[in-house]
Amino acid sequence: MNRINELFGIKYPIIQGGMIWCSGWELASAVSNAGGLGIIGSGSMYPDVLRLQIRKCKQMTDKPFGVNIPLLYPDIEEHVKIIIEEGVKFIFTSAGNPKKYTSRLQKHGIKVVHVIANKKFALKSIEAGVDAIVAEGFEAGGHNGVEEITTMCLIPMIKDIVNIPIIAAGGISSGRAMLAAIALGADAVQIGSRFIASNECSAHINFKNKVVNSDEGETDLTLKELTAVRLMKNKFYYQIQDAYAKNASKDDLRLLLGRGRAKKGMFEGDLEEGELEVGQVSAMINKIISVEEIIKEITEEYELERKNIVSLKDLGL
Amino acid sequence: MNRINELFGIKYPIIQGGMIWCSGWELASAVSNAGGLGIIGSGSMYPDVLRLQIRKCKQMTDKPFGVNIPLLYPDIEEHVKIIIEEGVKFIFTSAGNPKKYTSRLQKHGIKVVHVIANKKFALKSIEAGVDAIVAEGFEAGGHNGVEEITTMCLIPMIKDIVNIPIIAAGGISSGRAMLAAIALGADAVQIGSRFIASNECSAHINFKNKVVNSDEGETDLTLKELTAVRLMKNKFYYQIQDAYAKNASKDDLRLLLGRGRAKKGMFEGDLEEGELEVGQVSAMINKIISVEEIIKEITEEYELERKNIVSLKDLGL
Repeated sequence: MNRINELFGIKYPIIQGGMIWCSGWELASAVSNAGGLGIIGSGSMYPDVLRLQIRKCKQMTDKPFGVNIPLLYPDIEEHVKIIIEEGVKFIFTSAGNPKKYTSRLQKHGIKVVHVIANKKFALKSIEAGVDAIVAEGFEAGGHNGVEEITTMCLIPMIKDIVNIPIIAAGGISSGRAMLAAIALGADAVQIGSRFIASNECSAHINFKNKVVNSDEGETDLTLKELTAVRLMKNKFYYQIQDAYAKNASKDDLRLLLGRGRAKKGMFEGDLEEGELEVGQVSAMINKIISVEEIIKEITEEYELERKNIVSLKDLGL
Repeated sequence: MNRINELFGIKYPIIQGGMIWCSGWELASAVSNAGGLGIIGSGSMYPDVLRLQIRKCKQMTDKPFGVNIPLLYPDIEEHVKIIIEEGVKFIFTSAGNPKKYTSRLQKHGIKVVHVIANKKFALKSIEAGVDAIVAEGFEAGGHNGVEEITTMCLIPMIKDIVNIPIIAAGGISSGRAMLAAIALGADAVQIGSRFIASNECSAHINFKNKVVNSDEGETDLTLKELTAVRLMKNKFYYQIQDAYAKNASKDDLRLLLGRGRAKKGMFEGDLEEGELEVGQVSAMINKIISVEEIIKEITEEYELERKNIVSLKDLGL
């Protein structure tokens, strides 16, 4: 048995990444119904919205699902309260110290998973007593670490120092990549960007089409002085680069970022002024389909390619 | 049969990356004798030195080996002449347009492999008629592409557009990583950094020890305006970052880089003033051993982990 399947009570070791403006109840419940673990991304939700999203998700699936909470979120206390009240079973925390909430959530029977991007925070997560970790490589979309450690390097490194289940994230949108992540030592994968181009994702159709039409080299990890984020190279992105060229201060960058950029880009579909968070794999995503089809394609390719992995003994000259 | 094993006539689908100041006849012949394909890195050699290195390598192994030539090298014409005269069978070209030499080399019965870091150059390599490509991810040490595409994203992307054999490079120092690369669609792997910490590598012992003692986040891809290179963060590296902070021009950077930095660091062991080219995997390398032991460890781990890759059918709840 796979430890992640056991931990969450799911069929496939596939977790859908919690993504602001992209993963509400519709996406989360679809992933859970298809055999993975759906995650509501609470980072873009007011507390009341989050409560409604959780309730709707419970109506739409009787399968397990979770909620992602960025620990830097201002409404975090209210979010935590709602999650406990609504009986959510799985919390994914990110962007902060896992110590603060882990034991409190676990006392309510909630399993806690923390997202990390380096060994230092993997060890902090162990200390905090989390139930599993998401190890997210440099190629992942959205907020990320500044050390730029890629999935290929990160997973074996983390595997060597922790015993709890590892969920690999970053660069995974296909069965082949899922197979690679398992080969590297992960127990499961977290997939974000691929689900943006799904029927059930709450992103604006302009953003979905942008993901589908993008090619290699069209994302970058930037704004490391504030919170590092991988996003698409659009007008807003080049404004950031211009600011860097003029030695912008942290405050200048904060002013340029302003408020509501992510909503403007991903939810309202303003492809020039908005912030478009997505991973390097966007280059490989070329159609908008249903969540069920995505999971079918990935799991079928996984099984097919698994059988194709050559034994070195069969190669001998 | 694996296409790469056939192409080169080797036992294991493991190619040793050609590395300036690190891969002379001693490393190359040891890798070939251990069942991989050893590569002499000609980028740090005067023509006469290259000829002696090739002759010595032929004395030390009766197995196939190759030579790597960076196409931007000033002595390239003489290098090519020597390679043909000495009857080398396999040439790995990098850092330039593969069109210029491929057909000329092939007329002499030489197989040509070109190193690429994106789709654009993969397609140029196909047009040039190369026999195989090395697809090198962002995490790799030394010279690299500027698009920052990681191995996890690059290999499936390249697999989708080419039919010739693919050798994956970047982030591979273990059997698990090799298995992941094969899962992603590669026919073979190219391993560089791991061989720096080998008895047979010609690098200075200070550099080998530095690789062994390094940890996560200690390398960076920099100097993108000149030729992008991943190197260790030492005094020289921070001088580059200071220059960037002062809006250094290309000429300023060229002046700072000067001549002989790589030799100073990797061959003469000056860990502060020298350029130390190595990949992100240096964080995982923790002992200097023989090439034979390295290849044994990698291939044994590959076989072990291959058997551990779970079938999704065995997971069903």
